[in-house]
This record gives sequence, structure tokens and C-alpha cells, in this order.
Amino acid sequence: MTSTHKVTFDNAAPVEVPTGATLTEAAALAGIVLNQPCGGQGRCGRCVVKVQQGEIRRRSTLRLSEGDIGQGYALACQAVVEGDVSIHVPPQEKLERRLVTDLTASSVAIPDGYCYAEHQTVQRIPLRIDPPSMEDQTDDWSRLQRSLRQTAGIDKISISLPMLRKIGQILRDGDWEVTAIVEKSQSRETDSARLLDLFPIHFPKEKPLWGVAIDIGTTTVSVWLTNLITGQVLAQTAEYNQQIQHGEDVISRIIYDSKEHNEGVLQKLVIETINKLIERACQRAKAKPEEIYKAVVVGNSIMLHLLLNIPAATIRTSPFINVFNESQHILARELDLTLHPEAPVEVLPTVASYVGADITAGALSSGIADTEKTTLFLDVGTNGEMVLGNKDWMVTCACSAGPAFEGAGVVDGMRATKGAIEEVWINADTYEPNIRVIGGGKPRGLCGSGLIALLAELFLAGVVDKSGNINTTLNTPRVRTGAHEGEYVVAFAAETSHGKDIVITHVDIDNLLRAKAAIFAGYVVLAEGVGVPLNTLEQVLIGGSFGQYINVEKAIEIGLLPDLPWENFHFLGNTAVRGAYYALLNWQSKQRVNEIAGKMTYIELSADNAFYDAFMSALFLPHTDLSLFPTVVKLKEQNQQG
Amino acid sequence: MTSTHKVTFDNAAPVEVPTGATLTEAAALAGIVLNQPCGGQGRCGRCVVKVQQGEIRRRSTLRLSEGDIGQGYALACQAVVEGDVSIHVPPQEKLERRLVTDLTASSVAIPDGYCYAEHQTVQRIPLRIDPPSMEDQTDDWSRLQRSLRQTAGIDKISISLPMLRKIGQILRDGDWEVTAIVEKSQSRETDSARLLDLFPIHFPKEKPLWGVAIDIGTTTVSVWLTNLITGQVLAQTAEYNQQIQHGEDVISRIIYDSKEHNEGVLQKLVIETINKLIERACQRAKAKPEEIYKAVVVGNSIMLHLLLNIPAATIRTSPFINVFNESQHILARELDLTLHPEAPVEVLPTVASYVGADITAGALSSGIADTEKTTLFLDVGTNGEMVLGNKDWMVTCACSAGPAFEGAGVVDGMRATKGAIEEVWINADTYEPNIRVIGGGKPRGLCGSGLIALLAELFLAGVVDKSGNINTTLNTPRVRTGAHEGEYVVAFAAETSHGKDIVITHVDIDNLLRAKAAIFAGYVVLAEGVGVPLNTLEQVLIGGSFGQYINVEKAIEIGLLPDLPWENFHFLGNTAVRGAYYALLNWQSKQRVNEIAGKMTYIELSADNAFYDAFMSALFLPHTDLSLFPTVVKLKEQNQQG
Repeated sequence: MTSTHKVTFDNAAPVEVPTGATLTEAAALAGIVLNQPCGGQGRCGRCVVKVQQGEIRRRSTLRLSEGDIGQGYALACQAVVEGDVSIHVPPQEKLERRLVTDLTASSVAIPDGYCYAEHQTVQRIPLRIDPPSMEDQTDDWSRLQRSLRQTAGIDKISISLPMLRKIGQILRDGDWEVTAIVEKSQSRETDSARLLDLFPIHFPKEKPLWGVAIDIGTTTVSVWLTNLITGQVLAQTAEYNQQIQHGEDVISRIIYDSKEHNEGVLQKLVIETINKLIERACQRAKAKPEEIYKAVVVGNSIMLHLLLNIPAATIRTSPFINVFNESQHILARELDLTLHPEAPVEVLPTVASYVGADITAGALSSGIADTEKTTLFLDVGTNGEMVLGNKDWMVTCACSAGPAFEGAGVVDGMRATKGAIEEVWINADTYEPNIRVIGGGKPRGLCGSGLIALLAELFLAGVVDKSGNINTTLNTPRVRTGAHEGEYVVAFAAETSHGKDIVITHVDIDNLLRAKAAIFAGYVVLAEGVGVPLNTLEQVLIGGSFGQYINVEKAIEIGLLPDLPWENFHFLGNTAVRGAYYALLNWQSKQRVNEIAGKMTYIELSADNAFYDAFMSALFLPHTDLSLFPTVVKLKEQNQQG
Repeated sequence: MTSTHKVTFDNAAPVEVPTGATLTEAAALAGIVLNQPCGGQGRCGRCVVKVQQGEIRRRSTLRLSEGDIGQGYALACQAVVEGDVSIHVPPQEKLERRLVTDLTASSVAIPDGYCYAEHQTVQRIPLRIDPPSMEDQTDDWSRLQRSLRQTAGIDKISISLPMLRKIGQILRDGDWEVTAIVEKSQSRETDSARLLDLFPIHFPKEKPLWGVAIDIGTTTVSVWLTNLITGQVLAQTAEYNQQIQHGEDVISRIIYDSKEHNEGVLQKLVIETINKLIERACQRAKAKPEEIYKAVVVGNSIMLHLLLNIPAATIRTSPFINVFNESQHILARELDLTLHPEAPVEVLPTVASYVGADITAGALSSGIADTEKTTLFLDVGTNGEMVLGNKDWMVTCACSAGPAFEGAGVVDGMRATKGAIEEVWINADTYEPNIRVIGGGKPRGLCGSGLIALLAELFLAGVVDKSGNINTTLNTPRVRTGAHEGEYVVAFAAETSHGKDIVITHVDIDNLLRAKAAIFAGYVVLAEGVGVPLNTLEQVLIGGSFGQYINVEKAIEIGLLPDLPWENFHFLGNTAVRGAYYALLNWQSKQRVNEIAGKMTYIELSADNAFYDAFMSALFLPHTDLSLFPTVVKLKEQNQQG
């Protein structure tokens, strides 16, 4: 009996693992990243693999039928290696990469009045310094400070020890004509500054001075590489957060991070992700990472804790406490970011455990914090957060909607990538669907916008009733009773890329209803809390990846968005990274985000009976209280007549 | 022909070195530290060793007679190994260690009005914090800040990333009863503070809160371990600066440090010295180095540059420029000091290349900066620095006196350690000396106070004339013409511990005259510069190791000190470390040192014709202008009559 075993994945080079290792661990050694939305707890069933030769021990068979087991299927995270094995990884289970497309730089307009030298904390200052002499023996650092005072009005400046070691040589190499990179203070009250670097040359004025805005989403990380002088964004890159291999939602990430041997692993992964994105952006803009002198970072509280490698365990359990909410000023070298080592990394403030800097920054960039209109700002990504208010007041909450709209918790759910059904129309007479697939070709699943559209259409066509039950008595092969009670077949095996039916089941619909009910109940609680009826909302601003492709009409039809005129809805894209970008350009914007964070009143929903009531009432299509959805009632009537 | 050779030093284990290595390098490998006052340049002759077997190649024979060479003597730094050799190291050339005795703690009185909690920047604050709940979800860091605000009035406090990682656990481990160690800001203008550490317990009130005052002398490093709460010094330790093996004076150290492969070596050595002294002090006071939360450091400019590993090369050559003069606030972890890693290390300000923080701190502790009396403050250690002034004005200069008074540059000179002649009286009739030897026993050389006394006595006895010439016509075997012109034998071979004559030569006397003339010319230039006649000085304060044992009468007789009543002279011991100790106890004292540094007018002597004239006039015993030394004239007359 040997203590190590050979594991071979498809065509990859075999790896050796000890008895007791899981296939997930073996896959990692082989360089294969398996999808693990649940963080390797054997709950989600996404890491299923097929054992082709040899035997493994299944710690759990949850999510596997006897037939699956008979055919050799196993959950990699629950599969214990006890001998040599050969494993097949089904293609659709590999983590898709590079699905989030980089945007072109021209897509960001420089905001009016945002980019002036006096608003920028990082400045490049050419200096001509009087050389020392027997008549003026002033020390190098005082001489440099004197020149900065005379040239740039900087009265008080600090210097790090590594810089103090270098300045003597640089001043002389440049024959006392040098360029200082300086970070001025964040506020007008203090006049202190910091020397970031010194160069023995003068640069051409046109040379950009680089900064980056970074949004760390649970799913996607985005970077905007910006010229701090002109305000122009010269490259935008985005990429899956590499942490995703250890859990798709924040809770799974916290659980992973809290395990003894995992300390620092998630930090390393997100920093690798950011560094990769920076490298790609730099290649595009002909910049060098070490020439980036400032970063502003946003993300939800958990992402920010993990970025700084701060234990996040207390966020997970009642009373849900962050270690920090305040904005942080850190140096790139403290985080192994590939920026200039002295570059300030500004982490914007969070409000509560589930209302992060993505929301405070989004409140700035969406405009809710500056408008007179009563506004709902929604950011539904992997989590659902929302802000109700205007320039005078804001209330905020987060609801554990779950990732159903990202395709998780749904049998044939998937992310909005190639092969996903993103749009569905159903003929109310024949019940036949008409679908649009991302990238064209045959479908292999349903993404969020497809699920919303499908649910709305099924409801309007009468396939699904207001409780979400599928009418299995209809005269169509599309409706049938499957493993999970009633189901509707969106695409039959012959029409799909993987040769299996794509269905939506009663259980899927229940999950979607719970997700939409949680979000709807969120606004109801906020609105009732401040006495603002939902139908008086003057605008709804939607940020985050969720909002970018959904159809407002369909979302209203299922009761996910409130029943308002379509022109009241505005899709803003990634409001989080845009807020970071504003703070990158302008110190007043950064202060503004701090003010916004201080101004927001956080409502904790998990302790709120009103939320539970609102949630229960919203578990219907479109809602128990039809008076909230007059246009949907009208549409339903028309459909039934037509 | 092999490329490595075996070198054996006395009874040490043989070492292997490649062809071309020097005996100094081989000795270092063998763990033997050779004296190298000149930094291994072959100039001082102090690293002489005897080749017992084998042959070495002498790069230079400076300082060696043909007889010496015949007997196998060689300068280790100039001796190139080209074959196996066996070497004898004469005992007196090994670097004496532990000669500087640690003082007892009781020897420092706590200065009046210096030690109050409100003057101390580092404080230990016990906290009882309201635990979080669903009603109060404030994050950990804000909660801690709130408690510090309520308990200690601290409005604004920063935290390092490593601390931010720890607080969540500590707060919960202590069940929300914790102790914060906080560094308050240095001034009243800003109210910012820094969290140094947090503990999950409350400490007994009597437990000391430790700090250290550190004086880095070119020769000796001193540490005072202090309880910041009571102000009591609980241990004082002192030790040779380990850098001494690479040069006895600052210039040799700069030369060594500037060589390509030596970067960081001297920093490492001084930090090792400090850490060793801290460890010894902690053992004595039952403290732990990591419980020391604050350090204040003084030293001359070169010592401070080397401590921070900042290139000091520009200090050495005209126009003699420091990289920094300003006080620096560094963290212990940036320097590998064994204090608490977050402990602030305050480096006090310097004034110019050769007027360091030892002088600015000394100006504080000596009292010159607070007195109405016209005062001369003298600190003659390895260098000679001085300040003239009072509470309203101060001028300062440094003179390159050279280390003659520390025994260097004098044939039988040595440091003030066991075996050194420290006092001499000469019978004006017989010319026979009467000597006192440190530690009793037979002498082996002359230390500074012995040299001063000897020169004064030789002058008064008429053995030496006012120009320093030895009268070789006198009828005594003590006076003779040796290798270096005239010489006087202080002790014959039979009376000495090493069996060789101890002499003072004409060349030695020239060196001593130049050293004393440089110092005297220093005050003359300062005094003339501000129009204060020397005989109007109301007090002379003498700090540094030099002053501790010399005889004022003798020093006046040779024209080293001005001719004032003896009661005007006050020997203060190590004014530098005492100034650091004051700054350690009291933030106002630290500010005061900064003000003093800003107030001092530095006079650069090397560019000053007045200095050259004053120096030339002072190259006599006691001086060309005898009206400056009326009591010496009188004494000389009495002696000749007697």
C-alpha cells in the first residue's frame, strides 16, 4: 500500500497526491481550476467530474443520483483519492476566463470640473535647485523641501526612509535639476505632503502621470488606468476575481478564509488578479506598473477585508461586525501591488457589513447623493444592496437575495457568457419559446436576464401561476413533471450544445421568487421606513453587472423592479469603479465619499419584522398586492384576451 | 599552486582564505577583531601582527622599521596572504571590550517637572468597551476609537495594517476589556495619535512602560532604559560601537561605508551594538525588549546617517553636506531594532555635518539653551564640537581636532582603560615623573588625561619649551633623541607591563598641540564672531567622555581650556544621552531640541581665515598671546623660582 497516488486529468500531466487528498486538491496541483461556488462544501454540485479509471471514495453523494454514481460521476471536493485514478473534467465545469470583456478607453467621458491640478493629490513637480556651497551648507532634504516650498507652495512634507537613502545621489545625478512626485494631503485643513519619488531628469509635460481605480467585485475585478493630469482613462480591464475558485459568494469566501491553513490565500489571489489587470492595462496604454502613483479601491466589505488580509469571520455571524468601515490609506508596498511601492492605495469607506465601498462610491457616481429627486439606487451583483434618498438623506440596506439572478441555484443557470439564453419570448397560444443566445449558436443554459424574461413570459402566457406553480395540465410537450416537480423545457436536447434539455423547474422558480422578493422587500422596508410610497420614486438608478443587460419591462412583470414608467430607470453600468475613478481624480470627491458614508443610515434587515412581512408578500408574481403593479395587471389582462 | 591558504592565528581554529586576501580579512573569519583606527588604510600602524611561520606579501611597510620587518612584523591590513601562514596577534592590539562600565540606575535623578503623563507621548490606556449588538453594529476599529475618545480624549488616531489585522481577535479575547498602547502626537497643534498595540487584559498600574534613550558615539554607544510613567532610569548600559573595527574616526567610517561591498555593514554593526545594550539593560531591569515602546536617539551626523543606512559620502568632502538635519520619526521595525516593532524611534535633529544631535541634545541637557549666563558648552569626544551662547543666542562650530586626546596619533597613546597612565607629576629638579595608572599595576600607555598632564608638567618643568621642543641637553636619562627626534621617557621598559619604554616624542607633542590649538581656535572664532571676550565667559560646561576625567588645571596650563577660575568649569558627563532622556520623557523637550537646532548659528571653520590665524597662534604652550593665560604665566614663574 503506497502512500501517494497518481491522478491524471484528461490530457494534463499526471500529479502525485497522498492518500486522503481530494480531487479538488489534485486538480489544483495539475493546474486545473474547478468551479466551486459553495467553496468546496459539497453543496452546490458544480465541481462534478467523471472517474474513468480507478476508484475514489465519495465523502458525500449529495446532488448525485444513483445513476450518476453508477456512471462514475463524483463531486471533486468530496472525492477522496485512495489509489491511482484517471479523471475526466466535463468542459462546461471549467471556470470560464476572460469572459468579462475589456472596454475601450474612449468609453469613459471625463467628468466636468473634476480634473484640475488643484484637486489632484499626486503631482509631478519639476525643480531647479540651488546647489550647495560653502556659503549654503543646507542639508539635501531641507534643500529639497525649500525648493518644493518655493516652487509648489508645499510647506510640510514627509519622506520615507528608503527615499531618504536615495535623494543625495539623485540630486547630484540630476545636477540639481530633478522631478519630484509628491502626494499632497487629503484635505485643506492640513498642509502636509509626502515625497513618493525623485528623478534626476525633467519629463516632457505630455508624459502621463498614472493612477488606477479598482473595483473588487465578488465575481469580477475591474481596473481603470487613468492619466491623473488629463483625467483620461487610457485602459479598462476586467477579469474574474481569482478567489472565485474558493467560493462564489462572500459567505463561502469567509468560511474558506477562516480555516486555519488558508490565511492569506484569498488576499494573494485577489492581488494576483489586480496585478494581472494592471499589467494588461499598462501594456495597452504603454505604461509601466511602477509608474502608477495612486490607486483608489472599492468593493464590498468582505472583499476589502480580504484584500487587506483582515479576518472577516465576525462579518458572517450575528451581530455582523466589520473590523473597519473607515477609509484606509495604505502603501502599495504593504500589499505587494505592482504599483510604485510608495503609491498611496486609498480604500474607500464602507457603511456596514453588507453595504460596502462599492455602494458609497456608487452613491457618489450615480448622483443619488447630489440630486433633489427621490431616488432609488440599486446595485445587484452577487449581493443586492440599495440606497433610497437624495442629497439631503439616504437610507441603505442589503438583502441576501442570493445569486439566483447570476444563474446559481437554478438547474440550468449559468453566467451571462457565450451559450447563455439571454432573452425569451413565449407564444401564449402554443407555449413555444423564441430565444436569443449570447454569441449565437446553440444554447447551454440560462443567464439572469434570460431567467427574468422566461419567468415573466411563463407568467404572462399562463404557464406559471402567481405562486410560481407550473400548470402541468397544458397541452404541450414543453411542460412536464420532472425530477423537481413541474418543469418547462426551454430547449430540447437536440437544440442544445451539450445535448441535454434546458429546463426551468418549479424549484428554480421558487429560488427566483425568493431572490426577487428579497430585493423588492428591501426597497419596501426602506421606503416605508422613511414614509416614501414606492410610486412616488422619481428615478431608479441601477448599477452593477446585474443591471447592464436586463429588460426593465420583464423585471417589472415579475415584480423585481417597481412599476414605474420605463424612463424613470437608468442603467449606469459599474457605478462602483466609476466612483473610485472620481475619487482618484479629485480629493474632494474622496472626502465626499466619506461624507456620504457618514450620512447613510443603515437598516439591518435580518432583525426587521417588517422585512419578513414584505418578503412574504413579494413571493408572488408580480406581488400579493396587485395595486402595486397596475401595468402588469393590465398586460396580463390583454394577454389573456389576445 | 593552490588558490586557498590556511591562516592560523595563535590558538584560534585555522581559516581558509583565497590568494590575495588580507590578514585583516582572515582575522575576521577567525573571529578576531583587530584594531583599525584608520579603517584599514595602512596609515595608523595599529593592526600590527607578527608572522611566525610562512610568508606574507607587504603592500606597504609604512610605520614599520627594517628591524620590525626582519622580526616578521606586518600591518594586517596591508599583508596579503599568498601561502599558509601562522600569525601571532600581540595582546595589546586586540580591541578591548567591555571597558566602558555600565552605570548603576540610581545615578540619574529624575528632572523636576519633566515627567508628567501629559508630557509623555506614549501612554498605556485601559479600556472597557461596550460590546457590539444588533442595535449597535459599529465596526471594531470605530468602536475602539470611540472608547479612546471617551476614555482618553483622543480624537484622531491611526492604525497600521498589521495592527488592523489583530484588533478583532484581541477585542474578543479580552471580552471588550483591553489595554491600548498609544503614541500621541508630538505637538499640541494636531491631535492625531497612533495605536502601537492592544492587549486583551488590564495591566497592574505599577507595571513600567518602557522607553530608551540612546547615544551613538563614534567610540561608545550608551543606552538608558527608562520607565516612561515614573521617569526613572532602571538600567544604563554602554559598550564600544562595534563599527570601531572598521575605523576609529568618522572619516574612516565614511570611507569604509562608501566602498561598494560595504553597504549596510556599519548600520548592521551599530544596530547589533544597540540591541545588545538593550538586551543587557532589559535583563538588569527585568524588562523585555519588545515591551519598549519608544526610543530617542542622538549621535553625530555621521553616526545618524550610518544608523539609518543613508550614504554619508557627501559629508566628507567640501562643501560638507548632510542628507538630513531634521529630526526623524521612524519605526523600530524599519531598523531591525529589537524594540516593539511599532515603537517610534525619534532621531533628534542635527545642525550641520559636524554638529550633530549629540550637540543639540547636549545644549538642552547642559542648560546652555536656558541660561542667562554667557556660556561655552564643549563636547570633546572623538570629534570636538562647541556651542557659545545663552538662552537668547547660540553659535556653534566643530573643529577637526583629531583623536589625539583619545590616544590616537601618539606613539604610546591608548584609551582610558586599565594600564593607561592617567595622571603625571614631574619633579622640576630631577625631571623624574610620578604617575598614576588606571586599575593600578604597571602602565602600558598614556590616555588623554595622562597626555594633558604630562605635557603640562613637561612645560612647567622646562623639559618642553613653548613651541613643544624637548630640551635634549638636560641632564637626565629620561630625555633622549629617539626615532622621532627628541623624546621623554615616562616609564622605562622594566616598569611597564609590556616590557617596552613608554615615551612621548616631539612628534606626539606636535600632534597634541595641533589638537588643542584646533579646539582653542574654535572658541576664539566663536567668541570673536559674536564679540564676547573669552575672559568674560561666565561658565564652561563640558560634556562627553573627554571631560569626565581631565584635570582643569592641567588643561588650562597647556592652553586647551581658557584661563578662567576653576569654579566656572562644570563637568556634566554624557550630556548627549541625557538630552535624549529628557526628550524621551517629555514631548516639549523634544520640540525644544528642534527649536535649539533651528536657533544655532553654525560657523564653518574650514572656510574661515580667522580660524586659521587663531589656530596658528594657539600652536604654543599655552599660547602666543600670554595675556590670555595670566595664571599660567604666574605658575611658570613660580616653578622657575622654586
